[in-house]
Amino acid sequence: MSSTAFDLPTWSTQALARVEQALSDWVAAGGVVDAEHPAPAALREGMRYAVLDGGKRLRPLLVLAAREAVATGEASALNSAAVAGLDDAALRAACAAELIHAYSLVHDDMPCMDNDILRRGKPTVHVQFGEAQALLAGDALQALAFEILTPEGAAAPASVQATLCRLLAQAAGYQGMAGGQAIDLASIGMALTEEELRCMHRLKTGALLQGSVMMGAACAARPLPLATRNALHTYGAALGLAFQVVDDILDVTADSATLGKTAGKDAAQDKPTYVSLLGLDRSLAYAQELLAQALTALDASDLPHTNTQALRALADMVVNRSS
Amino acid sequence: MSSTAFDLPTWSTQALARVEQALSDWVAAGGVVDAEHPAPAALREGMRYAVLDGGKRLRPLLVLAAREAVATGEASALNSAAVAGLDDAALRAACAAELIHAYSLVHDDMPCMDNDILRRGKPTVHVQFGEAQALLAGDALQALAFEILTPEGAAAPASVQATLCRLLAQAAGYQGMAGGQAIDLASIGMALTEEELRCMHRLKTGALLQGSVMMGAACAARPLPLATRNALHTYGAALGLAFQVVDDILDVTADSATLGKTAGKDAAQDKPTYVSLLGLDRSLAYAQELLAQALTALDASDLPHTNTQALRALADMVVNRSS
Repeated sequence: MSSTAFDLPTWSTQALARVEQALSDWVAAGGVVDAEHPAPAALREGMRYAVLDGGKRLRPLLVLAAREAVATGEASALNSAAVAGLDDAALRAACAAELIHAYSLVHDDMPCMDNDILRRGKPTVHVQFGEAQALLAGDALQALAFEILTPEGAAAPASVQATLCRLLAQAAGYQGMAGGQAIDLASIGMALTEEELRCMHRLKTGALLQGSVMMGAACAARPLPLATRNALHTYGAALGLAFQVVDDILDVTADSATLGKTAGKDAAQDKPTYVSLLGLDRSLAYAQELLAQALTALDASDLPHTNTQALRALADMVVNRSS
Repeated sequence: MSSTAFDLPTWSTQALARVEQALSDWVAAGGVVDAEHPAPAALREGMRYAVLDGGKRLRPLLVLAAREAVATGEASALNSAAVAGLDDAALRAACAAELIHAYSLVHDDMPCMDNDILRRGKPTVHVQFGEAQALLAGDALQALAFEILTPEGAAAPASVQATLCRLLAQAAGYQGMAGGQAIDLASIGMALTEEELRCMHRLKTGALLQGSVMMGAACAARPLPLATRNALHTYGAALGLAFQVVDDILDVTADSATLGKTAGKDAAQDKPTYVSLLGLDRSLAYAQELLAQALTALDASDLPHTNTQALRALADMVVNRSS
């Protein structure tokens, strides 16, 4: 994709080591409400089961890549504690985005929604722990996302914390992920136009992916120029939509073992998809077009090319992945 | 209860007028994702149905009463815009606490949890809109709570916004409300000790009531002295527990029409309650004892008596209510 020597696997491995450690530390790990009262074991286990040991962690990687993209020149302008504070805020945002994603999967898999039994190659949370615990685990994961964004005595500025909460809440809520799922629910068996399908996915999947990019970008020493923010916004929108187009493609071209979830379920549930609407070839071409849009947006961002390499490589990975 | 002339009905009416208007304005009222894409109608309706037109609004009243308690002397120390910013933050916190409460009722009523069909005198959300929409409406209400706490360009300091998010997330999450519900779920049909019952209720109901008090107290011009914060913490804990003791009492002494929800369901579901554990007389005495604890804490708070009158009257109302 690119002529630079950027090594995404190495970058991802390092980034994911931090994310996995932080998730394990923060997801109900203490296990005690206070010294005398153990937190309910089933809830804790359900939460950890839903979050740990699985998933591509695309949202955390986008947060950390976007933080890297906006960190230019900080070392000379800030003291090291301030830089560390922003890095910590970004790591928290990365984990918070993953917690929102994880909770949405738990709830989406429940019998009253998609009624799926396989996720990330394991039984879904409600199969493993029962429906009531799955409902509560999802609810508690959403709350935890906002809790880890706002630690007491944080080194990051409070304005960054508040902005991260706003971006995440908007991405998760009725104008974002939850809204998209409601449209999805209402559109089973319906013939959607391409515009309607795009609108659904822009909310259901796109909002949190784009929100992850914007959260990373919010972990900057000072507010970004509007043009840069708009460029990252466009990158996030194109990448978010591309992710869903490729998801629709893989649903018909990959098998369940590769995906770690039930393949072919969109068609089985008569859900509208890009493949059902555009056909396979045009869907593949559309995914490449969205990748080009994402990369062009970064070119126009005024951010140094070196700093945006992880964002570029992630967009390439999203479009050219096989699972 | 008190010799002062404080008029709770008048105070509540004025406070609730602000809360109801704000909730109606903020709960998916715009109804559009953007000009071209209407938000999914069923989700919007489910959210509004769950929140508007019902409920005692105890949590919002506690937030606003606590804000009033800590606003002493602001007028001379701050300009009017700063005071208005803190008042706005408190109104947002009041509504956010109610949104968390409302979402928890929606999820708690679902078939996999309490399977209740009547709430606030109306069919529950899943009866009215279906289980999937109820699940999503609850999820979207939780996200909305954090969204309204963190408006862009707020007049309140960002540190207040971040603190409100932290307090609300902690009160709602695995160490608060969701954790308490998980304990509740695990304890049906079990013989709990009084200590275990207290622990369950401290989380399930108490955490959000106490959190509401602490959110109101966080809307202060400067951090409160530790003794004052501790006193409000004690007040919130006593009031939160008293609320549940009285709830247990009313479950056996009141009828469904008065309660606006199904009476006698604790006994029917073989749930441990204060009445089943202590008997009715000792439960009534315990509620009065908790009221005394709450009022004593306010006496020790160093806050002027005049400013704590609403908090005092609310504690009295919680313990001596009939529905």
